[in-house]
Amino acid sequence: MAQGTIGNSEFDRDTALTRREPGTPGTSAVFDADLSAGWTIGHAVNGGYLLALLGRALGGTLRHPDPFTITAHYLSASAPGPAVIRTEQIRASRSLSTGQATLLQVDEHGAEVERIRVLATYGELDALPEDVRTTAKPPAVPPHERCLSSKDGDPATAPEIAGRLDIRLDPATAGWAIGAPGGQGEMRGWFGLADGRDPDPLALLLAVDALPPAAFELGVTGWVPTIELTAHIRSRPAPGPLRVSLSTRNLAGGYLEEDAEVWDSQDRLVAQSRQLARVMRTF
Amino acid sequence: MAQGTIGNSEFDRDTALTRREPGTPGTSAVFDADLSAGWTIGHAVNGGYLLALLGRALGGTLRHPDPFTITAHYLSASAPGPAVIRTEQIRASRSLSTGQATLLQVDEHGAEVERIRVLATYGELDALPEDVRTTAKPPAVPPHERCLSSKDGDPATAPEIAGRLDIRLDPATAGWAIGAPGGQGEMRGWFGLADGRDPDPLALLLAVDALPPAAFELGVTGWVPTIELTAHIRSRPAPGPLRVSLSTRNLAGGYLEEDAEVWDSQDRLVAQSRQLARVMRTF
Repeated sequence: MAQGTIGNSEFDRDTALTRREPGTPGTSAVFDADLSAGWTIGHAVNGGYLLALLGRALGGTLRHPDPFTITAHYLSASAPGPAVIRTEQIRASRSLSTGQATLLQVDEHGAEVERIRVLATYGELDALPEDVRTTAKPPAVPPHERCLSSKDGDPATAPEIAGRLDIRLDPATAGWAIGAPGGQGEMRGWFGLADGRDPDPLALLLAVDALPPAAFELGVTGWVPTIELTAHIRSRPAPGPLRVSLSTRNLAGGYLEEDAEVWDSQDRLVAQSRQLARVMRTF
Repeated sequence: MAQGTIGNSEFDRDTALTRREPGTPGTSAVFDADLSAGWTIGHAVNGGYLLALLGRALGGTLRHPDPFTITAHYLSASAPGPAVIRTEQIRASRSLSTGQATLLQVDEHGAEVERIRVLATYGELDALPEDVRTTAKPPAVPPHERCLSSKDGDPATAPEIAGRLDIRLDPATAGWAIGAPGGQGEMRGWFGLADGRDPDPLALLLAVDALPPAAFELGVTGWVPTIELTAHIRSRPAPGPLRVSLSTRNLAGGYLEEDAEVWDSQDRLVAQSRQLARVMRTF
C-alpha cells in the first residue's frame, strides 16, 4: 500500500467532492459525492466517515475552514454509491461561521431520501492563541505491539472498514471480543489510517466514531446506531498516531451516551465528542 | 409568590408561544414569542431559557413530544422582546422525529436577524423501557442550608434571572465568588424554580445552562458566551429539586467545553449536556 499523505490518501480520495456550478458563492453549495464501500461495517456506512464527508463540504462552503463544533443527526442508513450534499451558510462573523448541510441519496424506489442533517460552527484553528490549561490527562494505552490489532482478525470476516484503518485496542478494554466484557463501559486504543496518512481536523471527525462502541464492554452486542453525534475539534493534530478514549456512563431506557476524547502525539487533547446511540440488543 | 405548577408558573408563562395559522400541520409551524426580561444576566437573555423556548416550539411541531437530543448554535445575542420561531419537521419514524428550529428578532435597524439555530431529535420519554445501568454517581451536594444561595446576594446587583431561580451552590465549588477560584473547573449545586414549579423535560433544558460557568473556578471571569450547546434528556424528572454538576476539563485556545449532569430527587441521571464556549477574559 502506498504511503498516504494529507491530500493524497485513501481517506482523501474517498471523501472527494465535486462541486456543482454555479451555486451561490458564500451562501450555499451543492456537491456530488460517492460513498465508498470501503468504509462499511456490514451494510452500514461508518458514521465518522460520513461526518468527515459532510465536514469537508462545509469547509468548502463557509467563510472559515475548520470545524469547531459539528452535530450530525443520522436520519436513515446511508448506502455505498452516489450521494448529494447540500450546504448553506447561516451566519458568518469575523472569527466564526455557522452552516448546515444535508446528505441525500436516491432510494430503491427512486425517491430522494435525506440520510443526515448537520449543523456546525467553523473557525480557523491556526488563528487560535496557544494557551492550554487542560486538567484532562491522556489515556494510558499500551504500546502498539501489546494491543489487539484489527489486523489480527480473520480478513474473511472483518468489516470492510478494517482495511482502511489501523486500530489497536488496549487489551484491558477488549474483553468483549472474547465474550468477557469488562463491565466498565470504557474503550481505549490507537487510531491511524491504514495507509499512514497523518491526521488533520477531518480525520478527527472519523476518529471519534471509528472504534468499537464502548458499550460492548457493558455487554451490549450488535449494532448500536448513532442518533446524534457532536464533535468539538479543539486543535490541529500533530503528525503521528492518535489515542482515542471512549466511555459510556449512562445506559438507560434503551439509549446510551458515548463520549470520545482524541489525543495527538504531542499529548494535546485535539477532539472531544459525545453521541446518543440506541441499544438494539444487550447481554 | 404563588406556588408554581407544571403548566401554571413563571417559567410556563415566560415560554408561552402563540402559533400562527394556518402553517403546514406535521411539517412546519411559525410561533410568536415574547422573550422575558426576567431571564437576563446583564443584557443577555439566558441561553437555557432560550433553549427551553425553542424546545417547546419543536414539541408543538414534531410527531413526538420530548427532546431526546437537542443542539443549539447561538448566532447573535437575543434581546428581551418579541421573537419569531420557525420550526420544520425533517423526518419522523415510529419512535423518533427530527426537526430544526430558528429564533428570529428584528434588530435596531429593522432587519430580521437570526439569533439561534436548533437541530433536535424528539421521542416519547414515557414510552421508554425502565432499564437503568448507570455507572455515573450523583454529585454530593451539601443540604440547602449549608449552600450558597443566590438569595444571599444583594438584590440590587443580582441579575434579573436570580429572581426566577432557586440555585444553591456547594461552597466547595464557589471559591470564585470571593475571589479565590478553586482551580478544579467544577461547579455543583441545587437547581429549582423560584416559584417551586417541579421540573419537566423543558425545565431540564434550562437547568443545564443556569448555574455560573464551571470555568469561574478556573479563574475565568466575565461573560463566557455559548457557541453551541447539546443536551440529552434521558428521563422525565421526578418532582423535587434537581442536583446539577458542571465540569470543564479543557480550556485551550480561547475556548472551553462545559459538561453538565442533572440528577433528579430519585437519584436518576435525567439530563447530560456539553457546550462549547468562548473565553473573553481570564485571571
